[in-house]
Amino acid sequence: MASHLTTSQQAHVLISALPYIQKYTGKVVVVKYGGNAMINPELKEAVMSDIVLLSLIGVRVVLVHGGGPEITETLKALGKESKFINGLRYTDGETAEVVQMVLSGKINKDLVSLIGRCGGKALGFCGIDAGMIRCKKLEGEVDLGYVGDITHVDPTPLANAIYNHYIPVVATVGTDENGQVYNINADTAAAEIAAALSAENLIMLTDIRGLLRDVNDVKTLIQEVKLSEVPALTEQGIISGGMIPKVKSCVTALENGVRKAVMIDGRIEHSILIEMFSDEGIGTLFTK
Amino acid sequence: MASHLTTSQQAHVLISALPYIQKYTGKVVVVKYGGNAMINPELKEAVMSDIVLLSLIGVRVVLVHGGGPEITETLKALGKESKFINGLRYTDGETAEVVQMVLSGKINKDLVSLIGRCGGKALGFCGIDAGMIRCKKLEGEVDLGYVGDITHVDPTPLANAIYNHYIPVVATVGTDENGQVYNINADTAAAEIAAALSAENLIMLTDIRGLLRDVNDVKTLIQEVKLSEVPALTEQGIISGGMIPKVKSCVTALENGVRKAVMIDGRIEHSILIEMFSDEGIGTLFTK
Amino acid sequence: MASHLTTSQQAHVLISALPYIQKYTGKVVVVKYGGNAMINPELKEAVMSDIVLLSLIGVRVVLVHGGGPEITETLKALGKESKFINGLRYTDGETAEVVQMVLSGKINKDLVSLIGRCGGKALGFCGIDAGMIRCKKLEGEVDLGYVGDITHVDPTPLANAIYNHYIPVVATVGTDENGQVYNINADTAAAEIAAALSAENLIMLTDIRGLLRDVNDVKTLIQEVKLSEVPALTEQGIISGGMIPKVKSCVTALENGVRKAVMIDGRIEHSILIEMFSDEGIGTLFTK
Amino acid sequence: MASHLTTSQQAHVLISALPYIQKYTGKVVVVKYGGNAMINPELKEAVMSDIVLLSLIGVRVVLVHGGGPEITETLKALGKESKFINGLRYTDGETAEVVQMVLSGKINKDLVSLIGRCGGKALGFCGIDAGMIRCKKLEGEVDLGYVGDITHVDPTPLANAIYNHYIPVVATVGTDENGQVYNINADTAAAEIAAALSAENLIMLTDIRGLLRDVNDVKTLIQEVKLSEVPALTEQGIISGGMIPKVKSCVTALENGVRKAVMIDGRIEHSILIEMFSDEGIGTLFTK
Amino acid sequence: MASHLTTSQQAHVLISALPYIQKYTGKVVVVKYGGNAMINPELKEAVMSDIVLLSLIGVRVVLVHGGGPEITETLKALGKESKFINGLRYTDGETAEVVQMVLSGKINKDLVSLIGRCGGKALGFCGIDAGMIRCKKLEGEVDLGYVGDITHVDPTPLANAIYNHYIPVVATVGTDENGQVYNINADTAAAEIAAALSAENLIMLTDIRGLLRDVNDVKTLIQEVKLSEVPALTEQGIISGGMIPKVKSCVTALENGVRKAVMIDGRIEHSILIEMFSDEGIGTLFTK
Amino acid sequence: MASHLTTSQQAHVLISALPYIQKYTGKVVVVKYGGNAMINPELKEAVMSDIVLLSLIGVRVVLVHGGGPEITETLKALGKESKFINGLRYTDGETAEVVQMVLSGKINKDLVSLIGRCGGKALGFCGIDAGMIRCKKLEGEVDLGYVGDITHVDPTPLANAIYNHYIPVVATVGTDENGQVYNINADTAAAEIAAALSAENLIMLTDIRGLLRDVNDVKTLIQEVKLSEVPALTEQGIISGGMIPKVKSCVTALENGVRKAVMIDGRIEHSILIEMFSDEGIGTLFTK
Repeated sequence: MASHLTTSQQAHVLISALPYIQKYTGKVVVVKYGGNAMINPELKEAVMSDIVLLSLIGVRVVLVHGGGPEITETLKALGKESKFINGLRYTDGETAEVVQMVLSGKINKDLVSLIGRCGGKALGFCGIDAGMIRCKKLEGEVDLGYVGDITHVDPTPLANAIYNHYIPVVATVGTDENGQVYNINADTAAAEIAAALSAENLIMLTDIRGLLRDVNDVKTLIQEVKLSEVPALTEQGIISGGMIPKVKSCVTALENGVRKAVMIDGRIEHSILIEMFSDEGIGTLFTK
Repeated sequence: MASHLTTSQQAHVLISALPYIQKYTGKVVVVKYGGNAMINPELKEAVMSDIVLLSLIGVRVVLVHGGGPEITETLKALGKESKFINGLRYTDGETAEVVQMVLSGKINKDLVSLIGRCGGKALGFCGIDAGMIRCKKLEGEVDLGYVGDITHVDPTPLANAIYNHYIPVVATVGTDENGQVYNINADTAAAEIAAALSAENLIMLTDIRGLLRDVNDVKTLIQEVKLSEVPALTEQGIISGGMIPKVKSCVTALENGVRKAVMIDGRIEHSILIEMFSDEGIGTLFTK
Repeated sequence: MASHLTTSQQAHVLISALPYIQKYTGKVVVVKYGGNAMINPELKEAVMSDIVLLSLIGVRVVLVHGGGPEITETLKALGKESKFINGLRYTDGETAEVVQMVLSGKINKDLVSLIGRCGGKALGFCGIDAGMIRCKKLEGEVDLGYVGDITHVDPTPLANAIYNHYIPVVATVGTDENGQVYNINADTAAAEIAAALSAENLIMLTDIRGLLRDVNDVKTLIQEVKLSEVPALTEQGIISGGMIPKVKSCVTALENGVRKAVMIDGRIEHSILIEMFSDEGIGTLFTK
Repeated sequence: MASHLTTSQQAHVLISALPYIQKYTGKVVVVKYGGNAMINPELKEAVMSDIVLLSLIGVRVVLVHGGGPEITETLKALGKESKFINGLRYTDGETAEVVQMVLSGKINKDLVSLIGRCGGKALGFCGIDAGMIRCKKLEGEVDLGYVGDITHVDPTPLANAIYNHYIPVVATVGTDENGQVYNINADTAAAEIAAALSAENLIMLTDIRGLLRDVNDVKTLIQEVKLSEVPALTEQGIISGGMIPKVKSCVTALENGVRKAVMIDGRIEHSILIEMFSDEGIGTLFTK
Repeated sequence: MASHLTTSQQAHVLISALPYIQKYTGKVVVVKYGGNAMINPELKEAVMSDIVLLSLIGVRVVLVHGGGPEITETLKALGKESKFINGLRYTDGETAEVVQMVLSGKINKDLVSLIGRCGGKALGFCGIDAGMIRCKKLEGEVDLGYVGDITHVDPTPLANAIYNHYIPVVATVGTDENGQVYNINADTAAAEIAAALSAENLIMLTDIRGLLRDVNDVKTLIQEVKLSEVPALTEQGIISGGMIPKVKSCVTALENGVRKAVMIDGRIEHSILIEMFSDEGIGTLFTK
Repeated sequence: MASHLTTSQQAHVLISALPYIQKYTGKVVVVKYGGNAMINPELKEAVMSDIVLLSLIGVRVVLVHGGGPEITETLKALGKESKFINGLRYTDGETAEVVQMVLSGKINKDLVSLIGRCGGKALGFCGIDAGMIRCKKLEGEVDLGYVGDITHVDPTPLANAIYNHYIPVVATVGTDENGQVYNINADTAAAEIAAALSAENLIMLTDIRGLLRDVNDVKTLIQEVKLSEVPALTEQGIISGGMIPKVKSCVTALENGVRKAVMIDGRIEHSILIEMFSDEGIGTLFTK
């Protein structure tokens, strides 16, 4: 056990976890993994340990991840120039191929391997596998190239994996009927996967403390938001900027059968455990 | 979580439990419950919490208990005089009936109820159920009346219970072919049940720290004993007195397919967790 | 076979049982056991034989029993004074503990043992097991102490038992959320269990021939009563006194999914078989 | 129930059947049906009732039948002349076709229908189904044409049927690899089927009381024969004539995993029940 | 492979079958077999090969057959005079028995055997088995004797067979509650069986090309007919004569849950494969 | 169907495939995919179509692939200089990472996608998933860096996939206990996977016709080689050069439970089908 505490203290901590374990055992929890927790090696290992622990106590965890800086790095290393439109990356055909390769071949399998070293058994998937994530071109004001809009998620391969006690790790690329690969926003993908699996909980790891009334004061953290409060909070500008799509993903999940969606701070070590194993939680919880 | 530690510290404790959880998940562990831990209400609740926690993280726990002082109390309340031979209770027909009633109707169901309040789901059994524990009269130098010698254990009802995620609690009375009820030594019964279930671990809660080289010095605790060392330790008088039958039960279990048998101090709160969730353990471990 | 008949005659009897076996095979039948059939040893063994026979030909029997005189005896032996209010026993805390002990530790396990000797395999349960019977204090004109009013029955442990071809024997005590034990009326408990298991048939063993138009004339036995006739029969005083709660249990069962409820005379040997294996039956049948 | 006995007497008969039901429940019993019991309509119905009763109390019965006089009748009606060699029918190609048609289309389906009217659910099979009974030409001193020697039995379709609670009824024709149909001795076929299903019991209905020391005195019935005694009994002429092949079938069954083989008198009504539900039995039992 | 083509050409053919295999794998297809394809030995073997191929690629085929000329032949051989009313055979009791015998004992088992020689595993059934096809006397203007009108089909034995990867072959005789056997129209029986199994496809093998606008010109074949077009086509006389009952069977099937019904020309070798493995098909398709 | 043949001819081809389908249905076949068939787009699609066809007719196909020229291309695009020792690529840490990324993220998922477009459902795996392929550094005369020697294959994820009717596609990278990634020879990996799955058949696609007695004359193709003949053929120089490791993989597979191993020419379109669906096959078959 952790050496700075007496074994007796440690046993008390385990016992105090009992009601939380009871609450989640057998439930599906989808974790959207990204941001700082995906870059810092200590945080990375802490997240994977949290996931392995959850898996061992009977929680059926699915890890969904996007890309992070590795795509940019690889593109650069390949001498591929990046094109940005209004600050958003334009994904041409070549870029889509690199995104597929880096997401599902590098980041995904590295996470699978790290979970293995933490004592879990993971299987790496991407939306191409068994045509699991079908998408079409995202329509919008600007043409972003091969950025996908999810039209259907077939959760069968993930359901099989969790039924067989594996932790599925999902890279967020998808395809259309012709096999064209698309880059997909990982928050959206996590929400759709959670919905397709009727998950109990969607946990989104971000680089902020949660939804703050005053963006400069972490003490103004809003601990719980009802779906009905979202429009007012948006109007008041409390949900704004980069929070808008994240909140939208939470809303999508809740509207499609997920029981709870929560945004937590991935920069805090073991924030997943703290969220799931305490009454107060650690971030902002969205509920119906 | 436990309030005197930060949530972060608590998360670390949970994470540090990971390798031990991995070791025991899906395994059958038989806990022989008795002594002080059965009398002191705080210890009682701590033991039941430990068992519920183990059950929730996937350990298949079976709780085996004997009688303790409640039998004596009830006999006294019923005006039944106790007869002792060489310090051992003589069990006549009437006494056997009271033993059955108190063990399987009072102590057993009270434990089942307490486990329920700790968040687990338990089912109470005794050796009479489905003729699960068959015995004959124990032969020895003195006639102790209806004290039973186990001839066969049918573990099917217990196996069904753990398969359906219940915690079986077993009162140690048995019957012969004619339905005569016998009082059975709980250590022996726990060992035979562990063997019949091919348990990973038999944990015996006692009122001592374990096997001590010097009975007056807990620092002389022997942490591990190989089966082959038992005869010498007996000859040296280190295994002596009340320890002899307890060690014999451990030996029986190991010789019949149980992987590990351990004697731990039931007077220490959460000693089961400390034993199972630390490398050093807390008592004396017997192995092949 | 039975020696006073030729084997040929006996074979004819078996063959004549064919249509009744067909009718009940695979069906759940709940037997409420009590009264004289629980005191007289010959009747007791005859009832258990009937139950084993039913079990072997594929009927899924559940035996529900109350206490009878043994509770009174044990209370007396323990020097516990009984307090009666309007002829009903007041159950204080101590009495509730004795009821639990005698019902689930003595009577229940003795029945399990007797079924074993008759060739069946039984498992003893009480409402405390897995929190199977939840209750609250029975409200009424007089305070009867810890007499329970059933709020919920979880039939899973009983369903598991019959699925695994065991005969569950249920002692009628229950608990509230805090673990307080309550004494429960066995007729009511049998009806609720039958409803929770969607039983085909609830058979109530009593000490009368059934519902009689003239209580002094067994020839006035009413063979079948429709639910709709109960109010009139009550008004006419034909259902009266001790019959009122028994009929109420039958009504409860029928209103909650049980197909048939029948009151039969437990003083007649093998009355269960006679009821189930003849067209005319032996007591009073309640149907929708 | 049977009207000439009181319901109480009838209940006693049922109860006395308990130990026999326990003995056979879940076991496979193959009944070879033939002789007088196949001609006399009352006996026919009695046999089918016995089989339905056994099926309902959990015995897995397989009925194997041969032809009887109906083949001869149909051959005659078709103007087909019969040819006999040493008293044995010569089966030419045309005859084989008629045998197939009458056995599997007339007798077999009539039995299936009769079992249905007795309250059972039967499925008719013959050795042609799924190539279940493979055979080659029986070699011997005389050429009997298409009389088959069984080379392999695939019991899967029968095992599926009994698993799904149907009573399989098997007509004893088989085929070789080229699809040529053969007439097969029904005793041999029953023995091979019993062996392939690892049956508990092979019951052969015949037109004699069993093996008699003095063929003219039924009081000299031999109740039990050990395999080891067969050669001596044959030498002494006690096993002789038509008994030789029947005993050989019993021996074959026992040598291939069947526990018991018994020859009983099909002329006695309900002889199957009398054999199975009494200690003394009714015919001659062959055991290892 | 087929020797007149290069292996490469043959591989191309197999590959071109891919989309059709995908369409039908796991689906239930009921084939009504009759007419010329039942008489000509080459066609017979071609049909059985088609069925075995379908079975091996995962289609769950059920073969339903009527009688053909063999019944007439056998009746004649038995010296039984046939009686016709308005050109329809009158089925008296004796005739019904012969129909049962020839259909279920000769034709049925011969087909089972032929499927075996083509590499499949078939089980022969008739409507008598497990009371699978219940019927009553067909009422009409003329009394045709024991010609049955289907009242209920229990598809369980057929569903068990296809679940266990056998090809069920069904002879179209049925019984009423008293066991009386009836001759049943095979087209009707196939439609009812397809409905009871919720088949994807009912394929009726006939001796015509399909529904022709001009009966003398195969080029006027109607490839697809909607249910709604049937009345008009009947009025126009395009559906007429012997086509009326066949079309009626297709309509019955479609109205009771079958997805497609198709009439194809059994005189064309491998017409089943050509129908199922080409876009254009080969006969007339009926759809909702 | 294929348009240059009549539908009747095509049906004949399908029928002629019957015996081969029967031979392989339900069997595990591991296909090692590489060489020219992995570069030429037409051949690529032909191979995937073959695999989808096999999958649909019930063969449980596992596709194992290595890298081909794409690794070299990507390394070059990344400006990574390749180092060769005795003509073998030296795999340093960076190269190992690129190998992982290209194999499991690009080639693997592209194959999965292509199978999807051909009508199959594939799941992409690599040896990192669930620690499926464990390896250590390959020891040899020269240090090749992170080139792996397989120590253990856990086939569970592949077995789960084929059980759920998916086609597993496996990229041949593995890891050691510390998570270090290794490049693994695809022939060896295919052989080990075939052994771990007790495959019926290991099919190795190569760029030659098979084993030739005279390397310049395809007419000297050896159609079948017994394990016992391998040493002599090696001594004679018939097995030489690049053939040595390929033959060694076949030998490994056969020695570990695989029934057949065959080397076929991937340059011939549909060579897999031609091999499996003809008696003569197309390459060199190795058997015990």
